[in-house]
Amino acid sequence: MAVKVYGFIGSNAVYRVLASLYEKNVDFEFITVNMVSREHKRPLFLARNPFGQVPAFEDGDLTLFESRAITKYVARKYADQGTELILKDPIQMAIQTVWMEVENQKFDRASWKLMEIAMGRVRGGPELVAEYEKKLSDVLDVYEARLKENKYLAGDGFTLADLHHQPNIYFLMSTRVKRLFESRPHVRAWVADILSRPAWLKLMAFSP
Amino acid sequence: MAVKVYGFIGSNAVYRVLASLYEKNVDFEFITVNMVSREHKRPLFLARNPFGQVPAFEDGDLTLFESRAITKYVARKYADQGTELILKDPIQMAIQTVWMEVENQKFDRASWKLMEIAMGRVRGGPELVAEYEKKLSDVLDVYEARLKENKYLAGDGFTLADLHHQPNIYFLMSTRVKRLFESRPHVRAWVADILSRPAWLKLMAFSP
Repeated sequence: MAVKVYGFIGSNAVYRVLASLYEKNVDFEFITVNMVSREHKRPLFLARNPFGQVPAFEDGDLTLFESRAITKYVARKYADQGTELILKDPIQMAIQTVWMEVENQKFDRASWKLMEIAMGRVRGGPELVAEYEKKLSDVLDVYEARLKENKYLAGDGFTLADLHHQPNIYFLMSTRVKRLFESRPHVRAWVADILSRPAWLKLMAFSP
Repeated sequence: MAVKVYGFIGSNAVYRVLASLYEKNVDFEFITVNMVSREHKRPLFLARNPFGQVPAFEDGDLTLFESRAITKYVARKYADQGTELILKDPIQMAIQTVWMEVENQKFDRASWKLMEIAMGRVRGGPELVAEYEKKLSDVLDVYEARLKENKYLAGDGFTLADLHHQPNIYFLMSTRVKRLFESRPHVRAWVADILSRPAWLKLMAFSP
């Protein structure tokens, strides 16, 4: 029985989960949640995710939410197929975990606000844009130094530490925030690399 | 050789790491970072954490930062001693991971802003306070339902999913935000429980 993903196309958190499934060559069933009719705030969906947000995920009797919890489950359950998304060596895993936390605590907080402004969900005056572009630039300065020494954030190979960035970066590359990535050569090369992965391209071609 | 924690007393992220070490009965050496002289922005510290924030952590040659990455390393390395902070069963671990992500994505973002306002780091007009108290209340409503069915967030036992909350809750219990925890009976009981754990009380008595 295929795993089930509840969400809608266009949600960055849904893309995060689907990217992990494509990297792992895992078949899935996609169930579109109708946000316009506020299906995600109704009891049936709230039983899957009490925060009323997409995605939700089911594997048999197990229901999960929070995109990064789902990708970790997928990476562990299908450890022996597809891309090695979580490194097995305890030291390497610890270093990978650092960069996953950086994504969550630093990159996501800065980039998500800029996405919300670009989508018109948050009124973004010039001061707010400048504040969050500064936050994102500070993060990308650290990434530039890291990626000068390592091809990917966790080391030599693409892992969840990189994958978790894909959706927000993909979105921001169609906005003026793109210049913050492009102006840093190692960040630019990393972005080009992770957005041209076969799994990501398959996801871009996916239509439920 | 004891592990080393670089930080200062009063930092919630440092407390998070120390709480995990006390739960695991791991000896540590504490090195105070002088924030007043901006030691955390100097090259020696930036080599430990490129973001120039506490804590940093060393175990022999391994250097880590990001408090939640450090607690996970501690929980895995010392899996067989002290409190079982990461559940071993894959399904239980997946559920634990959901609640750890909720802490990171939802609880921390709402509670940290309220802490910054309380500390005077962020100008907190009534509108901003109301906005973030609403965000925190929405999270605590979900916790109330969860804790009605389970003693701890991940299930029957105290894990990192609970531990990661301790520092922010401890701080907020001395502010007017306390009422948001106190008004929800299962959240209130959980708060009383996690802040009276022997490891947390030892940490409260710690002085470098």
